Amino acid sequence: MTAVVPRRGVVAALQAALGTAVLSGPDIPARNEKDWSTLPPLRPLALVRPSNPEGVAQAMRICVEHGIAVVPQGGLTGLAGGARPVEGSVVLSLEQLVGVEEIDIHSATMTVRAGTPLEVVQRAADDAGFFFALDLGARGSCSVGGNLSTNAGGNRVIRYGMMRELVLGLEAVLSDGTLVTSLNKMLKNNAGYDWKQLFIGSEGTLGVVTRIVLRLHPKPACTMAALCGLADYDAVLALLGGARRGLGPMLSAFEVMWPDYWEIATRRVKNVRDPLSSAHPFYVLVEAQGSSEEDDPERFQTWLERQAEASIITDAAVARSVADVQAFWATRDAAAEFRQVVGPHSSFDIGLPVGSMDAYAIECRATLVSQIPGCRALFYGHIADGNMHIITFVPDAEEQPHAKIDDVVYRLVQKHGGTISAEHGIGLLKKPYLELTRTPAELALMQRIKKALDPVGLVNPGKVLD
Amino acid sequence: MTAVVPRRGVVAALQAALGTAVLSGPDIPARNEKDWSTLPPLRPLALVRPSNPEGVAQAMRICVEHGIAVVPQGGLTGLAGGARPVEGSVVLSLEQLVGVEEIDIHSATMTVRAGTPLEVVQRAADDAGFFFALDLGARGSCSVGGNLSTNAGGNRVIRYGMMRELVLGLEAVLSDGTLVTSLNKMLKNNAGYDWKQLFIGSEGTLGVVTRIVLRLHPKPACTMAALCGLADYDAVLALLGGARRGLGPMLSAFEVMWPDYWEIATRRVKNVRDPLSSAHPFYVLVEAQGSSEEDDPERFQTWLERQAEASIITDAAVARSVADVQAFWATRDAAAEFRQVVGPHSSFDIGLPVGSMDAYAIECRATLVSQIPGCRALFYGHIADGNMHIITFVPDAEEQPHAKIDDVVYRLVQKHGGTISAEHGIGLLKKPYLELTRTPAELALMQRIKKALDPVGLVNPGKVLD
Repeated sequence: MTAVVPRRGVVAALQAALGTAVLSGPDIPARNEKDWSTLPPLRPLALVRPSNPEGVAQAMRICVEHGIAVVPQGGLTGLAGGARPVEGSVVLSLEQLVGVEEIDIHSATMTVRAGTPLEVVQRAADDAGFFFALDLGARGSCSVGGNLSTNAGGNRVIRYGMMRELVLGLEAVLSDGTLVTSLNKMLKNNAGYDWKQLFIGSEGTLGVVTRIVLRLHPKPACTMAALCGLADYDAVLALLGGARRGLGPMLSAFEVMWPDYWEIATRRVKNVRDPLSSAHPFYVLVEAQGSSEEDDPERFQTWLERQAEASIITDAAVARSVADVQAFWATRDAAAEFRQVVGPHSSFDIGLPVGSMDAYAIECRATLVSQIPGCRALFYGHIADGNMHIITFVPDAEEQPHAKIDDVVYRLVQKHGGTISAEHGIGLLKKPYLELTRTPAELALMQRIKKALDPVGLVNPGKVLD
Repeated sequence: MTAVVPRRGVVAALQAALGTAVLSGPDIPARNEKDWSTLPPLRPLALVRPSNPEGVAQAMRICVEHGIAVVPQGGLTGLAGGARPVEGSVVLSLEQLVGVEEIDIHSATMTVRAGTPLEVVQRAADDAGFFFALDLGARGSCSVGGNLSTNAGGNRVIRYGMMRELVLGLEAVLSDGTLVTSLNKMLKNNAGYDWKQLFIGSEGTLGVVTRIVLRLHPKPACTMAALCGLADYDAVLALLGGARRGLGPMLSAFEVMWPDYWEIATRRVKNVRDPLSSAHPFYVLVEAQGSSEEDDPERFQTWLERQAEASIITDAAVARSVADVQAFWATRDAAAEFRQVVGPHSSFDIGLPVGSMDAYAIECRATLVSQIPGCRALFYGHIADGNMHIITFVPDAEEQPHAKIDDVVYRLVQKHGGTISAEHGIGLLKKPYLELTRTPAELALMQRIKKALDPVGLVNPGKVLD
């Protein structure tokens, strides 16, 4: 196959079939040439934006017939490069495949098109008297199809699970252009292989998701939150155990912030303030969602007092209003503003067994500073989920030693039995490190799955696996 | 390949490698020749009971080298024939691969060998101050490996999910004898494909599970239950909506029983009594698990009173003790005794959208009686999960018209957008009906997955798919 003829051919064939849904050359918007990762933009052969599932299937068939790679795109908020175009590819964007098709109040489900932004889904659920539990910072831009493809996590995984637990039915286009539809609404369906699981978290490398049946939850009646100061990591673990037992399924978030992170978040990020009166070795944001406005806030307060009486927490501020809850979360969401305050840096999304988190942090900080003089590391994360984020930077260095830092961070993850990606995925950027926390047998099995679903290797090639 | 030589060869080779773990001929216990399905027993070439994962891998390699099919067995409590030996196969039983390897209290996980009985896991969790949420009638006999392979559901899916949601890490032997190990303890791990999902619910047709990391939950402090009488199915749906909103995540079970079922359960099954004073068109067992013995029982009571004030429930009995809770569950568990009271019958495990359940029941009952004079159908199930069970029988007929009944039941499931198996799996018995609720594209995709993981077709052949 020579490159030029089929490439010209593919754009013409796509235009003939899909008309104005196809853009090429300078008509392709700059935003579709990259995602939120640090990779430079790359212009694809064409951008296709079908407005129905059949259009997605048609585009896939045409590309496969021409031997052209397809890169699926959702809201483009991925941080690992999973949605970035590859050389000589057609980008298949779901941005026009939007809208809520149905809410079934008895089954507590929503059927939605894959390009629909997360925030639209959240609002539609709310309007219908339900709660869609997935939430993350990019809610206004990211799409539910992208959330599915990356198995997004976010803030309330401890209570509601990741995207995987929120998906009941799926429609997807396979690599040969077959549209497979299974818009299941039942919590239980064990009739044959649950093939939809393959498409969840595989970053668009096995096919393209077109429609999803989402699981809805009851709307919480109230949200309680406390910001606690603790003396050491043992106290953090004791508080987590106490929260699991005492708050039970009300517990909706357990966010831990190490002091280096806390200092920058509360002193240097605009509009973020420290709700506590003194400094502590650890800070924990505990959130619970209740189903009774009359009972649950008091119950949360009583639980918190018991933690203080047991000397598990040293200090705590309790939210008295929705504004307080938001102010507490601001300390945690401040991470998004760190580019402004610390300048160029690396950021990480790793997983570790809960009990090993602080041992990891101590070793990682020490190793970084010994190998890279002046290097700083800030730790925070969804600890109850085994998910830690890290921001590292060498102050005042325009050129950050990314590769060297990656190496330290990921090798220590391997040593402590963790994962190099808890919720952001692998994409292009983390592929070199995948073998650190996956065995050769696992990688071979993943390759076998890829080969079975995409034998020619045209679906989002080079992402996740080589 | 002729049959005799390799068969003889395989038993000798297995015995040479695994010694006394291998039994053949009349040494094979009768229990391993069948499962709880209605299929007749069949003696395999050999029974292998390895006591470690390497033994399982070794047995698989030897069988594959000899071109001999392998049938994995757990606790043998499956109802669909998934663990029944096939002609000329070696049975690979996990019954000696037992024991809890580790409980990580901070990650709230248990690492366990696949043959361990569910009840042993539940007790070990309890002893460590945790709760393992999966529960089903066969708890004393079924194994967690079998629970995983069938993606078992049971009574508390609405709150804790099915087995799939309770599995964090997995070790399995592939069809070529490779041992793949990923004993992940993190709730979040998006580093590459989550291959373990393939082994959950595929009924041992893609490989053999050897070790599992289970997710543990906090131990509930108290259990509340009520048995309610309701006037119609709209009231059942209103009560479900009210329970979701009012009890929030405390809601742990919502079991509906239609009156034909109720009458037999409470009047003809030994040691089961009707806690209500009069007859009703619907009976609902609502269960909630609380995290505070002081507050939650009162809260449950208040919630229930509101349902009565809103005329959603006509009558209700509230459990005052653990014995009461058990007595309420006895009305639901009575189903297991129906063979004694109604004689030969068919039983079904179907899924339907929640709103369509009663319409299905009405149509199914009418169609059965019109096509099979005298045929009775009793409906009950985990309605909130979209899961209904049916018991059908023609009174006093020794020979039940199974095929005719199956046909009516499953064709109506198709019509109402349901699934032919909610939690029992497909095995051998339901394979003929799989195409009713799975599309040709889905079945082709399942075949592609089977082919990728088991290219020679030696792992539990003929189960789930042809």
